Amino acid sequence: MKALEERIRKDGRVLPGNILKVSDFLNHQIDVPFMLEMGREIAGLFAGEKPTKVLTIEASGIAVGFAAAAALELPLVFAKKSKTSNVDEAVYSAEVHSYTHNKDYKIMVSREVLDPNDRVLIVDDFLANGCALRGLIEIVKQAGAEPVGCAIAIEKGFQGGGDALRREGIRVESLAIVESMEGGRLEFRR
Amino acid sequence: MKALEERIRKDGRVLPGNILKVSDFLNHQIDVPFMLEMGREIAGLFAGEKPTKVLTIEASGIAVGFAAAAALELPLVFAKKSKTSNVDEAVYSAEVHSYTHNKDYKIMVSREVLDPNDRVLIVDDFLANGCALRGLIEIVKQAGAEPVGCAIAIEKGFQGGGDALRREGIRVESLAIVESMEGGRLEFRR
Repeated sequence: MKALEERIRKDGRVLPGNILKVSDFLNHQIDVPFMLEMGREIAGLFAGEKPTKVLTIEASGIAVGFAAAAALELPLVFAKKSKTSNVDEAVYSAEVHSYTHNKDYKIMVSREVLDPNDRVLIVDDFLANGCALRGLIEIVKQAGAEPVGCAIAIEKGFQGGGDALRREGIRVESLAIVESMEGGRLEFRR
Repeated sequence: MKALEERIRKDGRVLPGNILKVSDFLNHQIDVPFMLEMGREIAGLFAGEKPTKVLTIEASGIAVGFAAAAALELPLVFAKKSKTSNVDEAVYSAEVHSYTHNKDYKIMVSREVLDPNDRVLIVDDFLANGCALRGLIEIVKQAGAEPVGCAIAIEKGFQGGGDALRREGIRVESLAIVESMEGGRLEFRR
């Protein structure tokens, strides 16, 4: 999505440790009209898969998930993060490793909000190593539902998580794929 | 908002400890088209105050904040919760006491996303004791910005937090005010 690449060039900042800071418009302050455009772009990519539900993860996935769900006129579910390892029978859950914070956490979705008949579009703001997406896919499968694909705002292509998922046959569409940000210079995948 | 009261009667559940569970449509699974209606209702109430920004708090405030910001065509900022008491000079922060979890936490907003010229509409999904709203108002004031009011999806009127804020001259508008849920029977404020 050209407009997103331009926005990242304009307002994104590359920080040490391969961090791309986009908190001015994407994940702390949110440019809502622009996010709705991104949602329509995601809807255009995935409407043909006939999803019945959008699934994302708190907190920064909620805005882009909401925008996609709005364009598709679908409900949105967000997985909750938990540091406790308590297993609650009322939830589906998966372990996720965060490379950013170098720790494991659990993500959970109530059994009441996922149904075996659901066709689930997974949406998130960032894709790097793909651990969060794998956790979400696992939860969809635990519910006996069908993951129809993953839609991402910004993929860090050089971290490889998206391509690994694609090689496994999972449809992953990212609105912008950063191929390199060495020396603070952003290059996008063509 | 009649439609919200009806939805709470239909899909909400009263649990022990004065908990109103609305996770089917409001704060775990989100009925996005309905939430957009709620956002338009909030916009109708507050457009006259000419807000320049919507402020909410992660995680469950983000959806209703996004819907309000969409209807008002404004940016959304969400405050982040933190358990650390580190003070970072790059943020505005406030202490919030959670009665639900009986603990204190800190909420933070980057200085980069609030401006002294901002007129800030504060939005959240629930209002009980009002502690989260007070923290958000404090952050707006730290930024030298103007809090133009608070818009809430569901207020638990019997917990008094909303009325205390109103007595202090703060405009608080809730789309549904639960006056009582004794014995599991919901009564709304007229």
